[in-house]
Amino acid sequence: MEIKIEKAKVLKQKPDFTKLGFGKYFTDHMFVMDYSSKEGWHDAKIVPFDYIPVHPASTVLHYGVEIFEGMKAYKTADGYQMFRPLENLKRMNDSAERLCLPEFDGDDFIEALTTLITLDYDWIPDQPGTSLYIRPFMIGNDEALGVHPVHNAKFFIILSPVGNYYAEGLNPVKISIENQDVRAVRGGTGYAKCGGNYAASLRAGKRAEEMGFTQVLWLDGVERKYIEEVGAMNVMFKIDGEIYTPELTGSVLPGITRKSCIEILRSWGYKVSETLISVDDLLEATENGKLEEAWGTGTAAVVSPIGHLFYDGKDHVISNNQIGELTQKLYDELTGIQWGKVEDKRNWCLKVKV
Amino acid sequence: MEIKIEKAKVLKQKPDFTKLGFGKYFTDHMFVMDYSSKEGWHDAKIVPFDYIPVHPASTVLHYGVEIFEGMKAYKTADGYQMFRPLENLKRMNDSAERLCLPEFDGDDFIEALTTLITLDYDWIPDQPGTSLYIRPFMIGNDEALGVHPVHNAKFFIILSPVGNYYAEGLNPVKISIENQDVRAVRGGTGYAKCGGNYAASLRAGKRAEEMGFTQVLWLDGVERKYIEEVGAMNVMFKIDGEIYTPELTGSVLPGITRKSCIEILRSWGYKVSETLISVDDLLEATENGKLEEAWGTGTAAVVSPIGHLFYDGKDHVISNNQIGELTQKLYDELTGIQWGKVEDKRNWCLKVKV
Repeated sequence: MEIKIEKAKVLKQKPDFTKLGFGKYFTDHMFVMDYSSKEGWHDAKIVPFDYIPVHPASTVLHYGVEIFEGMKAYKTADGYQMFRPLENLKRMNDSAERLCLPEFDGDDFIEALTTLITLDYDWIPDQPGTSLYIRPFMIGNDEALGVHPVHNAKFFIILSPVGNYYAEGLNPVKISIENQDVRAVRGGTGYAKCGGNYAASLRAGKRAEEMGFTQVLWLDGVERKYIEEVGAMNVMFKIDGEIYTPELTGSVLPGITRKSCIEILRSWGYKVSETLISVDDLLEATENGKLEEAWGTGTAAVVSPIGHLFYDGKDHVISNNQIGELTQKLYDELTGIQWGKVEDKRNWCLKVKV
Repeated sequence: MEIKIEKAKVLKQKPDFTKLGFGKYFTDHMFVMDYSSKEGWHDAKIVPFDYIPVHPASTVLHYGVEIFEGMKAYKTADGYQMFRPLENLKRMNDSAERLCLPEFDGDDFIEALTTLITLDYDWIPDQPGTSLYIRPFMIGNDEALGVHPVHNAKFFIILSPVGNYYAEGLNPVKISIENQDVRAVRGGTGYAKCGGNYAASLRAGKRAEEMGFTQVLWLDGVERKYIEEVGAMNVMFKIDGEIYTPELTGSVLPGITRKSCIEILRSWGYKVSETLISVDDLLEATENGKLEEAWGTGTAAVVSPIGHLFYDGKDHVISNNQIGELTQKLYDELTGIQWGKVEDKRNWCLKVKV
């Protein structure tokens, strides 16, 4: 793949790396590539980060044909490293298949990522807890209103230096179990990282936030009984010494942090069950003291302890609203690997010298 | 509302009005209005139809925060008329509530529509079966990647002269009943006219098309048993002299053509039941000859006869693959009202003199 590079004439002033927040600042450049059913993927380029001209009838503005990934690059002594980037590419291609978007090549994906990040290397923050958030996304871009699989698409990568996802840092969050809105259902798009899942989630998230909760815990769309995921994260529970996490039934996002946590936990000797977990069983375990720890997993927050679960008018406290021992150990291990401070035994990180 | 008008310096050449297709050509102007949570709706303007500059992190490109409506304007002797426009506004506001977008005012909606359409009046085609398709749409437009209800939005109206939705005109279509993918589930966004529902529908539509069908008939997401809607239309059945249509359970789009058909059919003395219709009961009615007619209803196609229903490897023919008598009568009545050729007893049309 040949990437045409047009460098920004004026570089932007960088934000205070100690006050980044999440996804608010963007680097000097972005990657763009076009697809048409006649030409396939073509015209790869890196251009100054700028507004995108979108046709008013473009598919992405009307029919939600948009998929994305979330990844991070971490500054190292002699460059940077990314965490399992080909896992993201694999999931993006699964999302593409569900929304009738074109697949993207793995080698091209890595080349696009590394060329762009190396160019904007100075934007990778080095404060504790910070990283360069990477947002690859693909949009359907036919310029007509008929509802059909698209013949034209665009793929972008944009970069954003980020701090901790939660302003409060690694502290237990309060979660409300949602019993009205549904995020996704088997047969739908829940396993794909696509816009519609997030659009469907906003109203419940807003209600929860107004009641003082950080996110919602989704139940399945069929029986409204089984735990699926937390807001924008997967979820895990330590019950009576064993780990349980919702199985990937088709309506749950197959998280790469989830997958990595399962591998780490098993290597530590824990029994990890990917299974159906009913809300009743979960709350019973909370009440009888068998639910020892609960946490969310995701690229943005990595590992996020859960201190409260609210359901049906009742608040259930988990591990005294403290960060559980295993939660902390998992967070330290995973962020340690990602930040290059813990040995990367499984060769998860793609290291790039700059 | 004050609308600032910037007229196009050069008007585009109009397409051949006998070969329009659907949603391929756009008029010279478009309506744009901005929303921010601080200022509310502001800065209404009509500008030359052109590409929209969208921030690469804009909510609409990532999280599917996008709703739309579909309406039509019909040329009359002294101007044009629109069909029940405030019903569209009402539905758009229901969609907005589901996706945490701002509501839009009814008077402003009508003013925006009439000002724009009057300006582009010459684009309303006058060939039989043609009309000016109106596409109001609203997008979430925060320029940051956090998943939250938006503080910024944009509302647009674009116009497209259209012919018949189906190239084949008013002919019976072949429909495949989908038993793999799900479009929507109760608790989700099925009743809202939002992008994610359409994104979820594309794969099944593509498979059906490859097998020679025009659209798919969706089953409910919970039991995968009850009829919901056809592709981008609602659906109605005449069984043993009575009319049945799926009830609005939350996962079915509340169509304005659907609502209008029900009112017309009842005024003609038909019993119309909005109810759960199981696919088994429907196919039994097909087999024992009680299913007399079936048709889809929607703004784009108005009334669309169904000639074949394919399910589980078996093809079921409806009314000998002919346009049913009632289907034709309903099409004639509704398009007659819309085109101003049949008396508009219920005052459905908003007439505008130009």
